[in-house]
Amino acid sequence: MIKFFEYNWQVRDEWFDWCNQLTIKELLKDHRGGVGNILYTLFHIIDVEYSWIRGIQGKEDIVFQFADYNTLEKVKSLSDKSRNEIAEFLKITNFGDLKEQLVSVSWDEDKYTFDDILHHIITHEIHHIGQLSVWARELELSPVPANFIGREFTRGFINENE
Amino acid sequence: MIKFFEYNWQVRDEWFDWCNQLTIKELLKDHRGGVGNILYTLFHIIDVEYSWIRGIQGKEDIVFQFADYNTLEKVKSLSDKSRNEIAEFLKITNFGDLKEQLVSVSWDEDKYTFDDILHHIITHEIHHIGQLSVWARELELSPVPANFIGREFTRGFINENE
Repeated sequence: MIKFFEYNWQVRDEWFDWCNQLTIKELLKDHRGGVGNILYTLFHIIDVEYSWIRGIQGKEDIVFQFADYNTLEKVKSLSDKSRNEIAEFLKITNFGDLKEQLVSVSWDEDKYTFDDILHHIITHEIHHIGQLSVWARELELSPVPANFIGREFTRGFINENE
Repeated sequence: MIKFFEYNWQVRDEWFDWCNQLTIKELLKDHRGGVGNILYTLFHIIDVEYSWIRGIQGKEDIVFQFADYNTLEKVKSLSDKSRNEIAEFLKITNFGDLKEQLVSVSWDEDKYTFDDILHHIITHEIHHIGQLSVWARELELSPVPANFIGREFTRGFINENE
């Protein structure tokens, strides 16, 4: 499970770097499908991940407003900050014992297991990144490569020695 | 890992159902990004999954030609057939012992571990499905929902009692 988080976080950072070539107008340009624009997609991925992880932790949800994060720098900073917290949590948590533990969250009537929530966070990010790759081509740009293999994992967010 | 395969295969089948509303012309219509059209994307996902699984098994690659699978029915049938084989294999294999085993394949100079290849197959499919979701909107259609949680896993491909 950890490897998928490492993958998602590295790909996300590569998208942040990629975004540096765009103006704020291009980052906020409306595209068909998904959640509508590049910057909001990155914000949404972070927001969803952080909310679910706080849910797993039994902590109250913190609702972020996109209006407060309307630049690339602010979204990147939110990503870094929330990720540090999440990496710390994933590092010290033994999910083997907790896999089937049920979690209630404020924004959903149903309960889900820790394990399913982790699966959800992972698939959610990859799905939205797939959408960014199409929008990149609409802007006549090459998307960030998405391959899992062949990729050098340059930074271990969770396993520092990786 | 198995849960991600179950998820991908169920979502894939939902896309096959979804595709029934399209003509073959729409299925083959050129879209920006990804591998270019809906039917070829589904074919490509299956082809990549099957090739890597055969690689893990130490079997020779079977190269499928899209020209031989140029209808929805043929691609669906390829999906069903290869999946039955893969599900059988995943069912009887204890990946815990094999995770770090290195695999060589004919189409790549580098070697990868079993574990990384399984991660690759999983992220590869989710990424391409994200692209289909954008193209669906270009056709003014709602895409297949991608959520992992809230989804009922109606068929256990690998764990039959799931």
